[in-house]
Amino acid sequence: MLAMDYVGRQKRFQQTLTEQKLNGFVVTHAANLRYLCGYTGSNGLLLFLDGRRTFFTDGRYSEQAHDEVKGARVVIPRGSLMAAAANLLEKAGSATVGFEADLTTVSAAKQMKKLAPKRVRWKATSGLIMRQRVIKDADELKLIREAVQLGARVYEEAVSAIHPGVSEAEIAGRLEFAARRGGADGMSFETIVAAGKRSALPHGRASEALVPKRGFVVVDSGVILRGYCSDMTRTVYVGRAGRVERSRYHAVLEAQSVGIAAVRAGITAMEVDEAARSVLRKANLDQYFTHSTGHGVGLEIHEPPRLGNKQTETLEAGMVVTIEPGIYVPGQGGIRIEDMVVVTETGCEVLTPVTKKLIEVPSS
Amino acid sequence: MLAMDYVGRQKRFQQTLTEQKLNGFVVTHAANLRYLCGYTGSNGLLLFLDGRRTFFTDGRYSEQAHDEVKGARVVIPRGSLMAAAANLLEKAGSATVGFEADLTTVSAAKQMKKLAPKRVRWKATSGLIMRQRVIKDADELKLIREAVQLGARVYEEAVSAIHPGVSEAEIAGRLEFAARRGGADGMSFETIVAAGKRSALPHGRASEALVPKRGFVVVDSGVILRGYCSDMTRTVYVGRAGRVERSRYHAVLEAQSVGIAAVRAGITAMEVDEAARSVLRKANLDQYFTHSTGHGVGLEIHEPPRLGNKQTETLEAGMVVTIEPGIYVPGQGGIRIEDMVVVTETGCEVLTPVTKKLIEVPSS
Repeated sequence: MLAMDYVGRQKRFQQTLTEQKLNGFVVTHAANLRYLCGYTGSNGLLLFLDGRRTFFTDGRYSEQAHDEVKGARVVIPRGSLMAAAANLLEKAGSATVGFEADLTTVSAAKQMKKLAPKRVRWKATSGLIMRQRVIKDADELKLIREAVQLGARVYEEAVSAIHPGVSEAEIAGRLEFAARRGGADGMSFETIVAAGKRSALPHGRASEALVPKRGFVVVDSGVILRGYCSDMTRTVYVGRAGRVERSRYHAVLEAQSVGIAAVRAGITAMEVDEAARSVLRKANLDQYFTHSTGHGVGLEIHEPPRLGNKQTETLEAGMVVTIEPGIYVPGQGGIRIEDMVVVTETGCEVLTPVTKKLIEVPSS
Repeated sequence: MLAMDYVGRQKRFQQTLTEQKLNGFVVTHAANLRYLCGYTGSNGLLLFLDGRRTFFTDGRYSEQAHDEVKGARVVIPRGSLMAAAANLLEKAGSATVGFEADLTTVSAAKQMKKLAPKRVRWKATSGLIMRQRVIKDADELKLIREAVQLGARVYEEAVSAIHPGVSEAEIAGRLEFAARRGGADGMSFETIVAAGKRSALPHGRASEALVPKRGFVVVDSGVILRGYCSDMTRTVYVGRAGRVERSRYHAVLEAQSVGIAAVRAGITAMEVDEAARSVLRKANLDQYFTHSTGHGVGLEIHEPPRLGNKQTETLEAGMVVTIEPGIYVPGQGGIRIEDMVVVTETGCEVLTPVTKKLIEVPSS
């Protein structure tokens, strides 16, 4: 395990709790547990209470929790984790305890309230940890760079398998096998390989369909390396691209470049989206651009900020986002080009090290 | 797409709603949407209201929803899906509307209540759809059989790659690639390959660790084929197993056989668990059996019933469960053997077609 500054992250979150007038907080979401205390297992509860942190998990993860968890006392209770946390709340004085309303089911919240002492005041909160997570620290940027590098290598291995008659699933399988061999924990989402007319499906999961003799092939994939996600898309053409295909490809590429050029600390998410979208509007292709320009990436594949046309959120230095305009012409085909970038004070740094010039795969 | 009896499932669920005195119900959980109306996308809302069904999704899934959804009117609203559902509730008379408390976040429930007319009475429910899903119908059993067959084939391909010096990740990668080539949608969970001492970790995700010259290797994997999950575990020995290893292996195998023999409609989940556990108790190994004996499998990899030592639930014909006792001796190694079975009136049918005799992989 990399030595991350978990204690520093906990201190910063403690400041948030103080600002929010919370003397307790319950964390159960896996990515938030990993971010705050280093735990990578699947069942855990981190309780912030009166300036101290206690981490609860079950017997299956005892060894792992003792190895991984930093800055918190590890407890392996006999009963449920929430019952054990409730015991600690019982010993505390009065408490106002936050929980994550976006990440807690109605049943779990009910159970929590039932087990804890009646005097506890529960406060439903939203995004308090994510607000901290969206700004990546130096340790995280290092891991994200490594994930992006691996994602790029396995993409290049997979793209060499694209030929007419090969199935989308075969290409995805090669990419995923290369990721495994490269040390990936797994894929950050279901690999998309969408060939020919299927490239017009923005979410065309790799299927048994075969690469045709002519047409675009969209490959959108990402790896998880030591917890951090990568995400990239390239579109190649099988055969010789005609005038219309070339012109559409270059419109998307220009939209992507203009989107990237717009990124800097202080700009709003919707301004970045508009920068990319306006290029496609000028090319009369914006009706085929049916999704947002990008999204944050980190421990999870979809994090804030969302770069959509209604998002007023301001970008900040240290955010990591995708820039991925695309067009999808029903019955014809689609094109998407996606990089990951780190936002800086004056612009951004593109992380994805793969060419974006139009690659034509020979038909035979 | 296979022609499943979605309308029949909706009718049966409508009976449940009538019994529960609900004239409306909101479904948003992906597996439940797929089960009830055939939709396989990632954003959708199915509203049962006064005997009619309306399915809402966003523009990205318009074509897919019109293709896939059966027995419900498809609506692609401009705003949020819940706002559109609220509009329908507005037109209805008084309504008592159920939602799934175990599968709905506190935030989503709050939003739902805010958007809907004030006169709607919301009722938090638990497991109403799952109760129906645990009994697999003939169409589902057919797909589950096919998933199990594919899972077995790819396991056998992977096991041939187990040799000293090969990484766990390489073995997992081969298995996953074979799954892709066999037409799997993906894996039903992160493939576990745990070699040598790491086999003592019940959840040892395939890592960079190498297969040693001697020791157990646990391979636990599953595929998703046309939506349905498979799940199987086998444990091989690299080198010549000693007396202790053989005796432990055969204790686990006997526990698994006795567990399978106990399964029939009418028995409780805890009785099946106890049947398997008692074998390991007699062998003085039960302290190393740290998890439940099994769980249901279907559209999701972990479904009810859980076959644990406190579960009083009764098995019914048509349930599909795993039987997977295991022992994990810290610092030494672990053994787990897992099949999927269908519960019948008089016993069960084992689906997993892979030998359970101890396989020794040559060291060189």
